[in-house]
Amino acid sequence: MLKNYNEDRTHIIDNKMAELQTVNEDLRNERTKCTFNQEELTNFIDGGAENTDMRRNIANFFFSEPRFKDEVPVEYLSHQEHYEQSIRKACIFYEKMKEWEEISNSNTMEIYTVIWTSGIDTAILKQSIPFAVHTIMFLPSLISQGTQEQKEEWVERAFKYTILGTYAQTELGHGTFIRGLETTCTYDADNEEFILNSPTLTSYKWWPGGLGHSCNYAIVLAQLYTQGINRGIHPFIVQLRDSETWMPMPGIKIGEIGSKMGMNSANNGYLAFNNVKLPRMNMLMKNSKVHKDGTYEKSPHEKLTYGTMILVRVLIVKSLVTSYLMKSATIAIRYSAIRRQSELRPGEREPQILDYQTQQHKLFPVIASSLVYKFAAKWLWDKYSAVTSQLERGDLDQLPELHAMACCLKAVGTADASVSVTSCRLACGGHGYMNCSNLPNIYSLSTATEIYEGENTILLLQTARFLMKSYETVQLGNFVSTSETLSYLKIYNSLKRSPWTTTLDCMASAFFQVAGSKIDDCYFTIKRLMDSGMAQEDAWNQTSIKLTQASEAHCRAFVISIYVKTLETNQFSPELMAVLTQLGELICAQWILNRLGDFLQHTNLKPNDVHSIQLLLEDCLKRIRPNAVGLVDSFDIQDEILDSALGSYDGNVYERLLSEANKSPLNKEPVNRSFELYLKPFLKSNM
Amino acid sequence: MLKNYNEDRTHIIDNKMAELQTVNEDLRNERTKCTFNQEELTNFIDGGAENTDMRRNIANFFFSEPRFKDEVPVEYLSHQEHYEQSIRKACIFYEKMKEWEEISNSNTMEIYTVIWTSGIDTAILKQSIPFAVHTIMFLPSLISQGTQEQKEEWVERAFKYTILGTYAQTELGHGTFIRGLETTCTYDADNEEFILNSPTLTSYKWWPGGLGHSCNYAIVLAQLYTQGINRGIHPFIVQLRDSETWMPMPGIKIGEIGSKMGMNSANNGYLAFNNVKLPRMNMLMKNSKVHKDGTYEKSPHEKLTYGTMILVRVLIVKSLVTSYLMKSATIAIRYSAIRRQSELRPGEREPQILDYQTQQHKLFPVIASSLVYKFAAKWLWDKYSAVTSQLERGDLDQLPELHAMACCLKAVGTADASVSVTSCRLACGGHGYMNCSNLPNIYSLSTATEIYEGENTILLLQTARFLMKSYETVQLGNFVSTSETLSYLKIYNSLKRSPWTTTLDCMASAFFQVAGSKIDDCYFTIKRLMDSGMAQEDAWNQTSIKLTQASEAHCRAFVISIYVKTLETNQFSPELMAVLTQLGELICAQWILNRLGDFLQHTNLKPNDVHSIQLLLEDCLKRIRPNAVGLVDSFDIQDEILDSALGSYDGNVYERLLSEANKSPLNKEPVNRSFELYLKPFLKSNM
Repeated sequence: MLKNYNEDRTHIIDNKMAELQTVNEDLRNERTKCTFNQEELTNFIDGGAENTDMRRNIANFFFSEPRFKDEVPVEYLSHQEHYEQSIRKACIFYEKMKEWEEISNSNTMEIYTVIWTSGIDTAILKQSIPFAVHTIMFLPSLISQGTQEQKEEWVERAFKYTILGTYAQTELGHGTFIRGLETTCTYDADNEEFILNSPTLTSYKWWPGGLGHSCNYAIVLAQLYTQGINRGIHPFIVQLRDSETWMPMPGIKIGEIGSKMGMNSANNGYLAFNNVKLPRMNMLMKNSKVHKDGTYEKSPHEKLTYGTMILVRVLIVKSLVTSYLMKSATIAIRYSAIRRQSELRPGEREPQILDYQTQQHKLFPVIASSLVYKFAAKWLWDKYSAVTSQLERGDLDQLPELHAMACCLKAVGTADASVSVTSCRLACGGHGYMNCSNLPNIYSLSTATEIYEGENTILLLQTARFLMKSYETVQLGNFVSTSETLSYLKIYNSLKRSPWTTTLDCMASAFFQVAGSKIDDCYFTIKRLMDSGMAQEDAWNQTSIKLTQASEAHCRAFVISIYVKTLETNQFSPELMAVLTQLGELICAQWILNRLGDFLQHTNLKPNDVHSIQLLLEDCLKRIRPNAVGLVDSFDIQDEILDSALGSYDGNVYERLLSEANKSPLNKEPVNRSFELYLKPFLKSNM
Repeated sequence: MLKNYNEDRTHIIDNKMAELQTVNEDLRNERTKCTFNQEELTNFIDGGAENTDMRRNIANFFFSEPRFKDEVPVEYLSHQEHYEQSIRKACIFYEKMKEWEEISNSNTMEIYTVIWTSGIDTAILKQSIPFAVHTIMFLPSLISQGTQEQKEEWVERAFKYTILGTYAQTELGHGTFIRGLETTCTYDADNEEFILNSPTLTSYKWWPGGLGHSCNYAIVLAQLYTQGINRGIHPFIVQLRDSETWMPMPGIKIGEIGSKMGMNSANNGYLAFNNVKLPRMNMLMKNSKVHKDGTYEKSPHEKLTYGTMILVRVLIVKSLVTSYLMKSATIAIRYSAIRRQSELRPGEREPQILDYQTQQHKLFPVIASSLVYKFAAKWLWDKYSAVTSQLERGDLDQLPELHAMACCLKAVGTADASVSVTSCRLACGGHGYMNCSNLPNIYSLSTATEIYEGENTILLLQTARFLMKSYETVQLGNFVSTSETLSYLKIYNSLKRSPWTTTLDCMASAFFQVAGSKIDDCYFTIKRLMDSGMAQEDAWNQTSIKLTQASEAHCRAFVISIYVKTLETNQFSPELMAVLTQLGELICAQWILNRLGDFLQHTNLKPNDVHSIQLLLEDCLKRIRPNAVGLVDSFDIQDEILDSALGSYDGNVYERLLSEANKSPLNKEPVNRSFELYLKPFLKSNM
């Protein structure tokens, strides 16, 4: 029997202490079974004990603010009331951020990253902050794309929130294909000004967060025309609303885009221009420039502008994917520990549903995914930091690889997260369908990440383009890769010669064999089609289902390899190492069985070995069972962030469900007025 | 070149005529390409031209009612306003039903089935009708479980809507396991009355539709106690609210359960009893009885009460699964025909996104699924009708098979529908996330069907129980099946000897080989575990992942076989037959590739044949492409039912998106009051 490290863990989590007396008995029992030191895992997830402390301190600081408490949950408000509530809270939220900057002597971006990663903003606003784009895109774009003069004009005002901005790229008819944007910005050398226009309905800017009614500036992406020539897409800073009256500026049509599946507090907006005039200095000119006379000077480093786009994808993987996975796993696991249903053995008490193999199969892979993606996100973040430093020195060598990995990790990670959140919701039965479980809201946020910052299929095809290019150099014999993400391309075939063993190493190697084989298949399919006379573009389109699958396989192989490498660093205690190994084996078994055909076709796995993978899967579920609650506890997500009647630390699920129901305004009076108005006449009409 | 049958089709669809001048050009072009007679397919889907007429007549009757028009879309209302709106509309809706009964000389259930199947109710109420349970469960239960005397007392009042009822089975702590219900109903022979109690919080009735504030009667399922003995679960009719004041009756605590992911107009409620007294005659006694002195008389035909439960599952498959599939396919296909994005060939106009192979791969299988499940639903409905007649003659022979097929078709069908709706939504990019696309709402309704009327995993395990029993008789040599759903169990192994050909017949046979092999594997796994000393219940649980997969494989094999058999009836014109064959091949290829490992392990498919399936899939996508819009047009779903800015018949997507956005109350004034209240002080605070 392993030592129970976690008996005193509760002293760490201040706000849970008061509730300890009333913790559900089943959950209490589960917690005594945990075999590893939860704080060790928590610290590792946070990237060190100091980070854990910082995160908890920030969370406590924000959650102690009484003005954030909702009297009526947002689900019961009208769209407009919800918006007004969000603006009220967002203003307080940004006030508090400033306060914390001073208290902690740290900067906005550092704090915001912690807030975003741990989901404090979502917990307070329930969906998203109307000013988020100001912080994540408007400010960084000013800083990275403005000249010194432009930064002096705007950056400080933006930091002090005397102006609020958004980032207006997407149009009603144009999403991922940036070259297709229709908004025009024409330079008039006589007056030294630009003229912005929305020539068509499809050129209306559409989607920018906060654009509807919540900001007065925007960086607008438009087709630049100078000296009668189209110079492509460039960024302009545009004032949208008068600072005193908040009325739209002349020539500007503006509104919100309407009700959405989620993120309704984001106030996404639309925007159209009718001969809106801008001073020349409102084009962000750090890279390309337009001189007074209209001469255009092209940027020497066009790829430098990629930076911001990649950043947001990296942040999605780092923050959102794992946050959605961890939150939904915590909610569903705790609920499954207290929910008792049906019978396993006649005459015995109804078992905890966590004891059903099918329930474990729905939930434990979500725990495993949480950590697998967390480890991959750490790699991606480090890579991003390294490449950004290289970029500053003018070294672009690793940019394509970073871009390719950010694309596929964002695509596969967000898709997996959405499927997992759904799996957790369905595992909670009808109660998971209640908004107070928070699972519907987590899903609406999670599935949004499948679309924004690059639609997932398109991102997979971008990764595929990189893979095809790299594989071509392998075929031409010029392949000298120093990168860990591609090194397998030369050797995957030789890996197939080893016998199958159902170990973590063997399985991890099989993922590379699948990825390599799929890349090879795509490469030669395209080649064959082109050899038969097909145009390259058509051959590409004709292979694109397989190309997306090759990118996905590449991504999974990479993610698994990073997990295995992280375990090999020997930084974990033996107790934690045992559990992390089980989770790694589980996710390998699960992903192999999900795409078993690939493994039977392309790896050293033989049909006779399949049985051993199924047994491993079932065995992992059994071995993880006692630690299930301990694992999600060590994700250390506060009740305020979980925001779930099913997932609270104390497990008092039924009491909370009833108390949440009674918050409905409909339950504030025994008879709704619709009885006298409609129902009574209907019942009396005696049809 | 095939004759274009569809040139005059428009005259049939009256309400589309006015819009014809403005139909989007791309959609108009698509429609000229259709190679088959759409009306032929429409009529087949409806089950005959008369049914098509009836459906269109009912729809036009309802949609011409001006009182159903929303001034402000429901998404912008508060929860309470939404509820009040729903009651108003529901009363009008039921009035109109009565009117139509008289006009058409048909009965409530017939009309309601058409309304439900075609989604007219959802189109009008946007989510669901608070009185739906009255019609689908309260009334049928009174009729099937009441004595003659009881029917006289209540049925006519229910038909005339002088009382409104619901069906209260599920409890806060108890869902699918009916024996675990805690509500008690104790007979007091001295006073000849029952006493209802909710002994615990977990015994609160929870979920019944309309229960919150919209009905005054309920059939309540409770543990019956007579003469001190628990007699199991029985149905009681209970008055919940006073008919004049609508106040809850003495001892009754009642409210709504609060905000949900969808179906918020359903007014699902909770209910608790504190010594509520009922006359003896309020137990529905057609089956079991309690005599005046408390003597209990058990029902001779316990299984007869299964009927209603099975009916609702059959109706879900018949109506909802296909309705959700067809609606979302129509929306996404039409949108993909008008949406142009990115470039396939440099310099050319942006292509319709329907031309991308990856887009076709997301959408065309949804068209195919729509029809595949439609055909299976027809079989299930006929089977249900046949078995119900047999039941009335006391013949229970085919009940277990009906139950097993209803369970797995409901489970696999609703799960497939939800995944497909999501695929369609994601295929529409950001615009699919807008509520005005209607895809989020369709998803919220579709995913609800995965949970209600039996959670899907539990249903699959019920089918598995039937399969294990049947397979045991095969093993014991006593297997004499006259049923088409099981006949393969004896021969699936011999099918493996034929060589693979990638034809519809060969693929359909492979599905049986997979199902049979998986059933065999489960059977012997359980046997082995029990032989090694494990209790049967534990062996079952230990095999349950595989059991659910075996049920799913059984279901898919059945669904494919029904589709192939329907094509073999030779009732289609050659042009339609060609298209239906392509769709059948597509869905086979898609499902085989999805579970390729199963087919490589358990069928005559060899690794070398896999390539031919991938090619078939790609080829089907190409061949279906010209008919994609024609196919969804022939689903014949009116704009009012699609209720989608992206999916309307005229394809004026961007105009509708803007006009929907401008319905937001926030867009009714240029500056929201939150500016003066919160934003302005925030911006001026100069932090």
